[in-house]
Amino acid sequence: MTVELICVGTELLLGNIVNTNAAFISEKCAMLGLSMYYQSVVGDNPGRLEHLLRMAKERSDVIILSGGLGPTQDDLTKETAAEVMGKTLVEDARAKNEIQEFLSKRGHDITENNWKQALVPEGCKVLYNANGTAPGIIMEDGDSRMILLPGPPNELIPMFEEQVYPYLHSLQPEIICSKMVKLCGIGESAAETKILDLINEQKNPTVAPYAKTGEVHLRITAKAENEKKAFAMIEPVEEILKQRFGDCVFTDDPQVTLEMAVAELLKKHRLTVTTAESCTGGLLAGRLINVSGISKQLQEGYITYSNEAKEKLLGVSHATLETYGAVSPQTAAEMAEGGAKAAGADVCIAVTGIAGPEGGTKEKPVGLVYMGCCLRGKVYTEKNFYSGSRSKIREYSVASALTLLRKVILKELEE
Amino acid sequence: MTVELICVGTELLLGNIVNTNAAFISEKCAMLGLSMYYQSVVGDNPGRLEHLLRMAKERSDVIILSGGLGPTQDDLTKETAAEVMGKTLVEDARAKNEIQEFLSKRGHDITENNWKQALVPEGCKVLYNANGTAPGIIMEDGDSRMILLPGPPNELIPMFEEQVYPYLHSLQPEIICSKMVKLCGIGESAAETKILDLINEQKNPTVAPYAKTGEVHLRITAKAENEKKAFAMIEPVEEILKQRFGDCVFTDDPQVTLEMAVAELLKKHRLTVTTAESCTGGLLAGRLINVSGISKQLQEGYITYSNEAKEKLLGVSHATLETYGAVSPQTAAEMAEGGAKAAGADVCIAVTGIAGPEGGTKEKPVGLVYMGCCLRGKVYTEKNFYSGSRSKIREYSVASALTLLRKVILKELEE
Repeated sequence: MTVELICVGTELLLGNIVNTNAAFISEKCAMLGLSMYYQSVVGDNPGRLEHLLRMAKERSDVIILSGGLGPTQDDLTKETAAEVMGKTLVEDARAKNEIQEFLSKRGHDITENNWKQALVPEGCKVLYNANGTAPGIIMEDGDSRMILLPGPPNELIPMFEEQVYPYLHSLQPEIICSKMVKLCGIGESAAETKILDLINEQKNPTVAPYAKTGEVHLRITAKAENEKKAFAMIEPVEEILKQRFGDCVFTDDPQVTLEMAVAELLKKHRLTVTTAESCTGGLLAGRLINVSGISKQLQEGYITYSNEAKEKLLGVSHATLETYGAVSPQTAAEMAEGGAKAAGADVCIAVTGIAGPEGGTKEKPVGLVYMGCCLRGKVYTEKNFYSGSRSKIREYSVASALTLLRKVILKELEE
Repeated sequence: MTVELICVGTELLLGNIVNTNAAFISEKCAMLGLSMYYQSVVGDNPGRLEHLLRMAKERSDVIILSGGLGPTQDDLTKETAAEVMGKTLVEDARAKNEIQEFLSKRGHDITENNWKQALVPEGCKVLYNANGTAPGIIMEDGDSRMILLPGPPNELIPMFEEQVYPYLHSLQPEIICSKMVKLCGIGESAAETKILDLINEQKNPTVAPYAKTGEVHLRITAKAENEKKAFAMIEPVEEILKQRFGDCVFTDDPQVTLEMAVAELLKKHRLTVTTAESCTGGLLAGRLINVSGISKQLQEGYITYSNEAKEKLLGVSHATLETYGAVSPQTAAEMAEGGAKAAGADVCIAVTGIAGPEGGTKEKPVGLVYMGCCLRGKVYTEKNFYSGSRSKIREYSVASALTLLRKVILKELEE
């Protein structure tokens, strides 16, 4: 069964707002196993909308529209859609009552144009709206279906979840479920190469990689008649992925971020951690402190942007800085060692690099970043190279530092 | 002149990503005075894309496409668009070189399919890509124009700004110019109230406020036959805004961020700065270090998440922490004073608050944040209250801390 999405709104064409409704509706339709081949945005223009609706009705089984259900003269989605479906508009008594209640409860005057919102196509299913005055609508004409939803996400989302999703589910015997396995410490192409056989053979379930900054997410998706069966199909594939990627897998929970996985590991081993940052300048500690309740693990951190600060706060030797420079494995190592000592922490993770756009040389170009990690006296270093803007290089550096920290803990304490 | 946007990508139809490119491109086109009536999303399907392109070519003067320029077999935007425009693909030597350099610099192997990205329609303008391997393309066929852009925003945005925007600008007889006046230290509704008379009277130029985290941006937009005339119309309005908002205006340059304005001020007065952060945990220093070349001003910073760290690194007195708690104006003040002393810096900006979701009490709820700023021994504190998620509260705190730092410098050194 095919579904097509049409979002109505001049503010989308002007770029005043980002179309988050489209991502929300598309994701839900994909979960239901509905195939979406087209999404469109048009303004509040009945001629263009009518043309698009007639074309969509020819090529798609279900058309979902959002926006243009307001009380003003501009809002013509309902009128246009009803005409294309050959329906007359009639007043809906319950919708009228609810509009009256909604407005008077908020102390708003009711104006004549509000009653326009109580008109619905004859014989349609009305989707009453607890969060606004525009009711949604489901219309059927033979095998054609149109679903009209209000534009504001705080009205559209609950209406979709509570009323539209069950309706679409009833049309669709099979549903789609998915699970995410998140990896760090491996690039997208290397990850893809490791599962090319799965990707090439795949029918149901399928596996697809998605690259995030410093992470790769693998989504496993299965189609089945119910959730239980879908997850039973997903499980063996998940096991294969976990075997192949081993320690690179940091979670299979969509809610868990890399910093949360690292915080969990620190907690498990009762480790205190500190940070020693040069080019990331606080962003690494800032990201660890995203995790609420990390205070037992992380008590303090050092931002040592200058060489003097590296000497003073972390005890990096003047000779090391002179001989090898601030961006070197030697300095990264001393930063990590010195940070752990200064903070009295079990482990310290250090970053020093050239984020650019200035400061690069031929030997040490912009994007060169060294990490150091010292766990109870044992020091690891890592060399990395990133491309992109200053902020992108810093963002990648933070992800790699978290990845190194995790790797060292796993190696030292779990192998 | 009309422009139409077609985004190609199955991940958009599946709702895996939000279409931020569409909002970005639409906003730029609106600024250029181009009329956009249609936006569409299609998957990597040459048949559907070709059909849509032929329709778009009939109804719009310029078609902008994003996505589908990758090296794999699926990526068919360029091949399909060239066919619709009646162009043959030929190899571009410079594109080939740049792809080779881009990949080898990163130590990636070059595979046969990479060369597909060096093919371009004959006679087109090639938009070279400093941030990826897919060049963009501008093709003309009589009055029809197609512009092909890579999908990743970090490639699309700079390519659009540097190469596509000037091209579109050259096509347009009446242009729209705008200028942005950026404010800090004032809320959106307070800002709007101060200029309601201007908003109500406006025709050309217009003024519109946009709220950003901790900032309000006022955009002045004028339509005229050339830039000079447009900016001559903007200037008097800009003057009025600067008079009305005084010190709240931190820049009128769209490229200048709040941290850049603060860094500029520090530089002007030859001040060294340090940071003392509790709940923001490094994000404040991290944001200042966004500014390339801030190393003369900022040499070090302190992340003092625990009370012990506040005592040890900043010299906050145990009695203050016991009596008033970590989240108090007294602690914020001592953090700022102690931080300046520890770093030997002219000024220290300190933040301590409850970012939640845990840790709130009736007296000190989640969202309560104190700032302290010490400039050459003189200490200011400020109480703030934010609502929202942990990350939102931390983000607002960083913006407010920068705003306080700026305010203190202006008050002490420029009044």
